[in-house]
Amino acid sequence: MIAVHIEDGRVEIRRKPSPKRPPDHALIRLLVGGICNTDLELQRGYYGFRGTPGHEFVGEVVEADDPRWVGRRVVGEINLACGACEWCRRGLGRHCPHRTVLGIVKHPGVFAEYFTLPVGNLRVVPKAVSNDVAVFTEPVAAACEILDQVKIPRGGEVALLGYGKLGRLIEQVLAAHGCQVRVFKRDESKRGRFRWVVEATGTAEGFSEAIAMTEPRGTLILKSTVHGAVPVDAAAVVVNEITIVGSRCGRFAPALTLLRQAKIHTAEMISARFPLSEAPAAFAKASERGTLKVLLET
Amino acid sequence: MIAVHIEDGRVEIRRKPSPKRPPDHALIRLLVGGICNTDLELQRGYYGFRGTPGHEFVGEVVEADDPRWVGRRVVGEINLACGACEWCRRGLGRHCPHRTVLGIVKHPGVFAEYFTLPVGNLRVVPKAVSNDVAVFTEPVAAACEILDQVKIPRGGEVALLGYGKLGRLIEQVLAAHGCQVRVFKRDESKRGRFRWVVEATGTAEGFSEAIAMTEPRGTLILKSTVHGAVPVDAAAVVVNEITIVGSRCGRFAPALTLLRQAKIHTAEMISARFPLSEAPAAFAKASERGTLKVLLET
Repeated sequence: MIAVHIEDGRVEIRRKPSPKRPPDHALIRLLVGGICNTDLELQRGYYGFRGTPGHEFVGEVVEADDPRWVGRRVVGEINLACGACEWCRRGLGRHCPHRTVLGIVKHPGVFAEYFTLPVGNLRVVPKAVSNDVAVFTEPVAAACEILDQVKIPRGGEVALLGYGKLGRLIEQVLAAHGCQVRVFKRDESKRGRFRWVVEATGTAEGFSEAIAMTEPRGTLILKSTVHGAVPVDAAAVVVNEITIVGSRCGRFAPALTLLRQAKIHTAEMISARFPLSEAPAAFAKASERGTLKVLLET
Repeated sequence: MIAVHIEDGRVEIRRKPSPKRPPDHALIRLLVGGICNTDLELQRGYYGFRGTPGHEFVGEVVEADDPRWVGRRVVGEINLACGACEWCRRGLGRHCPHRTVLGIVKHPGVFAEYFTLPVGNLRVVPKAVSNDVAVFTEPVAAACEILDQVKIPRGGEVALLGYGKLGRLIEQVLAAHGCQVRVFKRDESKRGRFRWVVEATGTAEGFSEAIAMTEPRGTLILKSTVHGAVPVDAAAVVVNEITIVGSRCGRFAPALTLLRQAKIHTAEMISARFPLSEAPAAFAKASERGTLKVLLET
């Protein structure tokens, strides 16, 4: 099969053997994959990554222990948890210390003709949801995670910093929940203080800006994974008794519900689409400023 | 009267006129004052402070609208709130944007023979509580604030970083609540991860160390007000979905209850005592490494 391969900053197409299917796993054929900022960071060398990236996908099951899965159109949660530790027992497999992560940590990703994932990670895509929409399930789940962690009442006014791929999904998820979302785009003068602030700028400066915009006793939800030491006004956090909540991946169920109800509009977020075999060009396009989602298709 | 005066890094004793008592305020005679790290920071020039510092005190009311206050031995909450804004209505006068702060922001402090405070800020000291104990009410309240903000169950294991003046009070307040407190002193190798971590090192490094010691989905309570930009591993906060809670002043009622019940031992925390007239020497002593509480007496 052909597969994308990242090594030393290069994105290449390689021929690789189709993956062997471990017990309890499905073998999945890629239909559509989405390039995420994390994939671009893997290319830039974060996590010392080398191999096949990709974790946003819609695929078709071609092989599984239970034949009823075969032919099903699926998306899948990206954390492969051990299922046995205290974290997994608490339902927090996403934090299992033994986990591997699809296309990120020690499990080959989806930018390949075939890949594997535990059947327990799979979610069937409702018929009404197209591939172009379903491929957004994972980032929509990450946006939904905010509401799993922080109780924001309907009608609550939320400042959202950053209006990239994740920011636009967060805006819609919060609006669907009934929040009043005030979006602050890059370079926009930031004014006022808010009880709830979501930081999704993807920049080191975003954290400090968000702290300055959070009112006393307010809550700042931090979404950007900025690598290295980020300078922060810690005294403001203490003096204003701000709560900061780090927020990462989310559950797929609420995301699929919102997508099935057509509460999230993704079509205008697709900047380009490439065949899998042109992944190097797709990565280059995805790296350009102003590009939103780039899809890879088989 | 004599009063301590801070200006351009110097601590002096000056003769000043006794303060005029505004309506609803009490005129208070200082019995014992405590030097806090904030006072040392005011000396170093933070907040552009110039004037009389001091906010930890036990005093005796000498004048008030209601004569029943006269002669009472009191401590007092340090934030002078407007009483009318939304914050004050929510019972969060400590965050009132119009507030002044005793000995810190636009209200002369207690390191003087006489000072004023709104009667609403005063709390009568129970007879069983000596001056030497009651002077710790304000920092004990700051320690109690942790339990007002974060629900830590009895038996919960808490890592405490920092074992200075505030750290020792936090240890005792958490222990009195039934927590198992693991204290990590300066230079002690930090190991393990904890569901609850309290950072009270007073250092810029403490924040990063505390993040590294907080387990996924855990809560880090930040107590140190370190000025300037503090470098932080923001990605770890996001990936591990850590909650950070800034924590400052607290309510006096639970602090006085703990002190009355003799749950907090403060005697061994008193490093030195000086007459008010020797405040410059007292500040010098308080600045020495290893010094805990320095008291000023009239």
